[in-house]
Amino acid sequence: MKTIENNTVGIIGLGLMGGAIAMALRSGGLIPPGSRGQILGCDIDEDTLAAARADGMIDEGFTSPEPILKGCDMIFLCLNPATLLEFMEKRMGDFRSGTLLTDIAGIKGPIVEAMETTLRDDLDFIPGHPMAGSEKGGYNNAKKCDFHGKNYILTPLRRNKRENLEFLKTLIYRMGFGRITCTTAEEHDRKIAFTSQLCHVIAAALIDCESDQEITRFGGGSFEDLTRIAMLNIPMWTEIFLENRVELLRRIEQFEGSLDKIKGFIAGKQKEELQETLRIVRNRRAAMG
Amino acid sequence: MKTIENNTVGIIGLGLMGGAIAMALRSGGLIPPGSRGQILGCDIDEDTLAAARADGMIDEGFTSPEPILKGCDMIFLCLNPATLLEFMEKRMGDFRSGTLLTDIAGIKGPIVEAMETTLRDDLDFIPGHPMAGSEKGGYNNAKKCDFHGKNYILTPLRRNKRENLEFLKTLIYRMGFGRITCTTAEEHDRKIAFTSQLCHVIAAALIDCESDQEITRFGGGSFEDLTRIAMLNIPMWTEIFLENRVELLRRIEQFEGSLDKIKGFIAGKQKEELQETLRIVRNRRAAMG
Repeated sequence: MKTIENNTVGIIGLGLMGGAIAMALRSGGLIPPGSRGQILGCDIDEDTLAAARADGMIDEGFTSPEPILKGCDMIFLCLNPATLLEFMEKRMGDFRSGTLLTDIAGIKGPIVEAMETTLRDDLDFIPGHPMAGSEKGGYNNAKKCDFHGKNYILTPLRRNKRENLEFLKTLIYRMGFGRITCTTAEEHDRKIAFTSQLCHVIAAALIDCESDQEITRFGGGSFEDLTRIAMLNIPMWTEIFLENRVELLRRIEQFEGSLDKIKGFIAGKQKEELQETLRIVRNRRAAMG
Repeated sequence: MKTIENNTVGIIGLGLMGGAIAMALRSGGLIPPGSRGQILGCDIDEDTLAAARADGMIDEGFTSPEPILKGCDMIFLCLNPATLLEFMEKRMGDFRSGTLLTDIAGIKGPIVEAMETTLRDDLDFIPGHPMAGSEKGGYNNAKKCDFHGKNYILTPLRRNKRENLEFLKTLIYRMGFGRITCTTAEEHDRKIAFTSQLCHVIAAALIDCESDQEITRFGGGSFEDLTRIAMLNIPMWTEIFLENRVELLRRIEQFEGSLDKIKGFIAGKQKEELQETLRIVRNRRAAMG
């Protein structure tokens, strides 16, 4: 790969994450205005493209992906999982030979499986998941999406070229991320079912069981923190919940088991057992940092 | 009551909240150094008293409460609920006649009940709950306790004097709080079981069901937000969970019902029903502000 300043980077989908990646590349000085490299954006929404051009975050914007697929050294595919799989199937013939591809989908199993078997030999696709979302979606909220110090997961394919993997890792750190974890799609989906999907299900359930909008008069921060993510992107999360349902259901059941145990201690006024559980929890959470 | 600048205010218990109240009174300029009013602190820990004196947050510190009970116009009782009830029973004879008392306990039923029946006729006690805690306890963390814009709940006794209630409300706003809700102890305990205690139980259950400390490599903010409060003050929360267990158990069961419903939609791949629930949740949370 050429150095990043000399790359033409395409972004398919200028939503929250696509927009934030454009901003990290441009405002972060990786592909500054006037460098040999360029940032090209594709989105179905013309207003989004106009906004990104006006902000100087992309050099050119397109409602159709062809110019990007033909003209880029590297492409960030910032689409929901199912849309990404459809896109790859439909557009596989259109990419320029040698292009490095990466995605941002919150579930990796189906994507790794599809790319291991259907990706063209002359392309390299490194599946990734930047852990830096926000409950507020869309390009207009992209600038609130802070990459600094955040986690980024990569689930490389067996065939990924070492130099491309190193190039992408360097790029991710230069975009501001603090930690990259390389793992399998299976481990990603298992762990994310807990840290992300289960948390979103819990937030939704908390709001589902209370209809009083004045309840926030009694909020002291905990309720607000636990339910912020209840304002979720419905199509994306529905897709992720259903696609990763086996792992997610297993995690919900684990959580229900723990909740039931604590409920039992409270119901039985088992002070010692309750304190011992809270002590383990406190120490464990502290160790998690 | 005299204007606040001329009051001698006592704080029994210089933990997180007692310390934060001292700081709001002193640094917030309500009882500035050199004013006729004074801030007196009582704590069992001499190092805490020394730190609060060195910081200029109290004018005098005592390990025994007598000088405060005899010498103050107003006293903040910053003790855990059971300790507060024991303290009031033991010290009822020691207060100076006419003193205005208030507390900060996170459960109000037992306190209102005890004070309605046992409070001396010549004292006024306005039960309160500042909704501005933190998972990090103790005087050393008090400066991180931000009152600005936060909720404060008051559950007045039938006998509270109107002028004392107005005085306390003005003081609370001047300490930085953004909204005061006056309600019954019953409503407080019912609502707080949801916004606070249930949230703490959920956070604890989330950590209880995952022992992998490296799980934070897969965190993107949701997990961190939902489990921050799992680092809880064990004696205080054990007491609150058990004391308010009837309401808390009811809330846990409501939450389990909602969780079970969402789990069912995921298990049954009921996309429409799942999306509809998430839509209601999203709108409701947005309306909560």
